[in-house]
Amino acid sequence: MNDGKDQASIGPDGLQAAELKKAMRRALALARLGPAYGPNPRVGCVLLGPDGGTVAEGYHRGAGTPHAEAAALADARSRGVDPRGTTAVVTLEPCAHHGRTGPCADALIEAGVAAVHVAVGDPNPVATGGATKLRDAGIPVSVGLLAHDGEELLRPWLHAVRTGRPYVTLKLATSLDGRVAAVDGTSRWITGDRARAHAHAVRAQVDAIAVGSGTALVDDPSLTARRADGGLFEHQPLRVVLGRRAVPDGARLRGTGGPLLHLPTHDLDAALRDLGGREVRHLLVEGGPTLATALLAADLVDELHAYVAPVLLGAGATAVGDLGVTTIGEAARFATADVTRLGDDVLLVARRLKPAEAEPSQNQSAEDSTAAEQTAALSAQDGRPGRRTQEEI
Amino acid sequence: MNDGKDQASIGPDGLQAAELKKAMRRALALARLGPAYGPNPRVGCVLLGPDGGTVAEGYHRGAGTPHAEAAALADARSRGVDPRGTTAVVTLEPCAHHGRTGPCADALIEAGVAAVHVAVGDPNPVATGGATKLRDAGIPVSVGLLAHDGEELLRPWLHAVRTGRPYVTLKLATSLDGRVAAVDGTSRWITGDRARAHAHAVRAQVDAIAVGSGTALVDDPSLTARRADGGLFEHQPLRVVLGRRAVPDGARLRGTGGPLLHLPTHDLDAALRDLGGREVRHLLVEGGPTLATALLAADLVDELHAYVAPVLLGAGATAVGDLGVTTIGEAARFATADVTRLGDDVLLVARRLKPAEAEPSQNQSAEDSTAAEQTAALSAQDGRPGRRTQEEI
Repeated sequence: MNDGKDQASIGPDGLQAAELKKAMRRALALARLGPAYGPNPRVGCVLLGPDGGTVAEGYHRGAGTPHAEAAALADARSRGVDPRGTTAVVTLEPCAHHGRTGPCADALIEAGVAAVHVAVGDPNPVATGGATKLRDAGIPVSVGLLAHDGEELLRPWLHAVRTGRPYVTLKLATSLDGRVAAVDGTSRWITGDRARAHAHAVRAQVDAIAVGSGTALVDDPSLTARRADGGLFEHQPLRVVLGRRAVPDGARLRGTGGPLLHLPTHDLDAALRDLGGREVRHLLVEGGPTLATALLAADLVDELHAYVAPVLLGAGATAVGDLGVTTIGEAARFATADVTRLGDDVLLVARRLKPAEAEPSQNQSAEDSTAAEQTAALSAQDGRPGRRTQEEI
Repeated sequence: MNDGKDQASIGPDGLQAAELKKAMRRALALARLGPAYGPNPRVGCVLLGPDGGTVAEGYHRGAGTPHAEAAALADARSRGVDPRGTTAVVTLEPCAHHGRTGPCADALIEAGVAAVHVAVGDPNPVATGGATKLRDAGIPVSVGLLAHDGEELLRPWLHAVRTGRPYVTLKLATSLDGRVAAVDGTSRWITGDRARAHAHAVRAQVDAIAVGSGTALVDDPSLTARRADGGLFEHQPLRVVLGRRAVPDGARLRGTGGPLLHLPTHDLDAALRDLGGREVRHLLVEGGPTLATALLAADLVDELHAYVAPVLLGAGATAVGDLGVTTIGEAARFATADVTRLGDDVLLVARRLKPAEAEPSQNQSAEDSTAAEQTAALSAQDGRPGRRTQEEI
């Protein structure tokens, strides 16, 4: 893992690597307080005094609110602290563009900070350049402190900004033998209450949920994010129907919940780019098998959420149809990121073995590309099971 | 959970419930040092002095060696301690029969112990009666202290003794979509090295491994229990082939490993009773799908070991064939006992919702049947997912 120790320990601000790392951990924790959904990344910022003590902090609370750096500077002022000479520790490279707020790099320069430490460089072509701007103003900048944790926090956002497509999480809820329903089509919920509650909490953290138009017609889902008591979460994701069949007038998808978007196409890459253009950073795909199979076959699934129940059906619809895999070496393999027991069920979170977001794009800064490449190299080492030859059993 | 607090705290030996519970925990830990395989149960025994301190301990090291109580009494003598007046804390009711060793109840009576505390009553019709014998000799006996833990330790053995059939653990190793191989038949190992090592360690703990005769012919498995370095574990389970097809002369099953037993029948209940008669307490079934399906359809699977890999195949042989399930309410449901991540794979251990071993038999003592019924009631409450009505998604 690149923890940026080298850059941090030689920082001209005189702070020790351990102090900076502790501050970055706090900045990451602050960032997590912001919403996971929305066009903007989650960012946290801590301002350290010359003695290494925290003098102010802030985080981004979502589109239309101040960026983390601005929030931290405002926090300093509200405490009567002059930010001049402080060290800014930020989870993402300060932006250099005029969006709904002014450029954070300018704000830090004006505030007279002594140095800036960043976890992850900003790959956003319209926002990048903050580190260069700061350096041009004579402020030393290090990029890469706790880069792995920073990338992990921003995984869907980084993917979307780098590729122009949303990060695609495919949800599967199956029996142990891979069935999503019995022969007669029952039941929508093979898995139990805790798995169901978890899946709804995930819905409340994504920008959009997609189903195929066939599933929309047959299952008439609402695709709302609901609490255990049936009440709606405050954030309701965009509801996306992919495919040519129309969404009927009386469909639940037209009822209470997020906005409805019907993309009547079978061109999944185009559909994802369309969603990317609408600033959808994280798309949760909930089925049915036709859409899941098409996305998997096109290698467009970034993450799997597989809820598996201790149930055997022996027959019935399978979660995934023909992927064109004829021999085991061609299997769609994922790297397990997390395993969680949810009551009687288990949730396996697994990711693509070659994350698209690890492919450096032309818009990346030098620092960022280095961090991304290191992360990619780590992913390849950590997660990938070795190719095995057949062995006797 | 019945922790026997009431019985224990009123014990006439004057020891406190906490002291007895601590001793029973130690006895259970001692029991686990014995082999999990073999005809005899794993049993541990601790002798406590009048002040509650441990004066001796012992456990059963497998068939042909002294029982736990005899081992503890021998330990006392080797330390120069007179067991007279001590309290015996034993995980299983002391036996009352002359087997390869004399009755433990008699040994405890002769040794002059003051009281006996037992976790689980002995359901073995030829060995039961120890508690009665002790009481007839004027020694107070409590049964049920940490009964749940005691039942858990002896789960396969208790099942086998109560039903006359081995405890059947069905192993499945599948992709996330329930496939055991790709279309062309590859690969024997969808799951990774850590799952494979775990499965071999399980083989080394069971009495027998079974495969169908078709699988024996097609896959030519060795069914040995091997260490990661390829070396054989000391204990090699009996290798059982079920079904009418012959095992070829040159088959690996005839090579190095446990003895080979071919049962050329399709009557699974009769085959299991045959194995029960041979003192097979725990049978691991490794396939193929035909045998797995037949056992599941006959409701003869007591435990599932499902190794699931983060892999999707979309086609290929499934782990389980037609179970006659047409609607979700008829699904073969299990209660999850444990979830373990093994590298990229996950192992889900799940058990029958209505354990056969919880059905009280005529041979059970009153105390034992109470403990068993309480355990059964607990299992039903803890493990069973509620029946769900269909809900909108």
